[in-house]
Amino acid sequence: MSKITIVKNILDANDRIAEENRKLFDNEKIYVLNLMSSPGAGKTSLVEKTIEALQSRYKIGVIEGDIQGSSDAERIAKLGTPVVQINTGGACHIDGNMVHEALTGLDTNKLDLLVVENVGNLVCPAEFKIGENIKVMVLSTPEGSDKPAKYPLMFQQSEAMIINKIDLLPYVDFDVQKAKKDALTLNRKLKILEVSCKTSAGLKDWYEWLSDRIEAFRSN
Amino acid sequence: MSKITIVKNILDANDRIAEENRKLFDNEKIYVLNLMSSPGAGKTSLVEKTIEALQSRYKIGVIEGDIQGSSDAERIAKLGTPVVQINTGGACHIDGNMVHEALTGLDTNKLDLLVVENVGNLVCPAEFKIGENIKVMVLSTPEGSDKPAKYPLMFQQSEAMIINKIDLLPYVDFDVQKAKKDALTLNRKLKILEVSCKTSAGLKDWYEWLSDRIEAFRSN
Repeated sequence: MSKITIVKNILDANDRIAEENRKLFDNEKIYVLNLMSSPGAGKTSLVEKTIEALQSRYKIGVIEGDIQGSSDAERIAKLGTPVVQINTGGACHIDGNMVHEALTGLDTNKLDLLVVENVGNLVCPAEFKIGENIKVMVLSTPEGSDKPAKYPLMFQQSEAMIINKIDLLPYVDFDVQKAKKDALTLNRKLKILEVSCKTSAGLKDWYEWLSDRIEAFRSN
Repeated sequence: MSKITIVKNILDANDRIAEENRKLFDNEKIYVLNLMSSPGAGKTSLVEKTIEALQSRYKIGVIEGDIQGSSDAERIAKLGTPVVQINTGGACHIDGNMVHEALTGLDTNKLDLLVVENVGNLVCPAEFKIGENIKVMVLSTPEGSDKPAKYPLMFQQSEAMIINKIDLLPYVDFDVQKAKKDALTLNRKLKILEVSCKTSAGLKDWYEWLSDRIEAFRSN
């Protein structure tokens, strides 16, 4: 029982910091996307594509979360996009406080959209709010269509699920209909998009869906 | 600081339970393999193949760890192998106590090899001992060759890394040499095997490597 209490206290403390982040983002009209997935599902590739597609319309910043290293941040920096790398030093997720500290490295009053790429992990990141407007998850086809049934929280917490690497469908055992059905059983409002960041298939729908949300936020 | 203390206490308590498990396994001469990877890297397929290859030689039991569901345990049960499903109910890893409780569901004095398939997660499982003889990790080619540099602990803790899904190499960007070099930089003793559970390529070397370890344990 004591373990459960401890975890609850950590999550409560995190919620308070996430709310502070949210107030700051609201004040500066920054739309914040918390992007989550298993390791190697294609989050960074999606961020790169999204920047290329939307940077003429929105000022975009990125926070990269990794246990160690800065290879993803270097990929984003090559696009000329402001980016801060969080190294969690072992922690399996990004929390509100890490984002709060990372903001000191970004000129927030120059941003319309902040993308936070979480640590690659299909479990823990879904438990920690960071002050985001929406959580979006990526499920890649080589991971298998059994993932919604086995890792329910992330599917429940996300507003959209991006099925990535559809270019690999001929070579992997991934039942698109089963994955969609199981995910919708967990979260009937989940928006599902099928894309390939490699071939760019399906990405226009993602850009449009995300832009619609940013516009709705800005007009409030 | 309090958070660090709490985590340390949990890990210390877990180490004690893992040691008790280890004594039990030693008494009954059971070799225990803790199998870890990202979600969907192919752990269950590897367990199925290993059972088929080694069941004439060793009495094998399996513990399946998932947040919820029993689809993997059902796959193993179809082979006639004794299997217990752990549902962690949200927890991102298997710990010593979960294995201890799962053992009540297995006739341990009829086993030579116990395979514990951990929750799909490239981070947290590496922190928790369960009383295993060896940790083995699976890295699948679609995850990308940047994983050792980003998720070091699991590569450091494992005695073997199985690069799975080599049948997908023509279709994904995976630099085998970079993955091997980076993994060996973290752990110079790491045994690296390249396999495809789909085509069975490379699996004989795995069976032989594992059998050698089981034999060395039994002759002690």
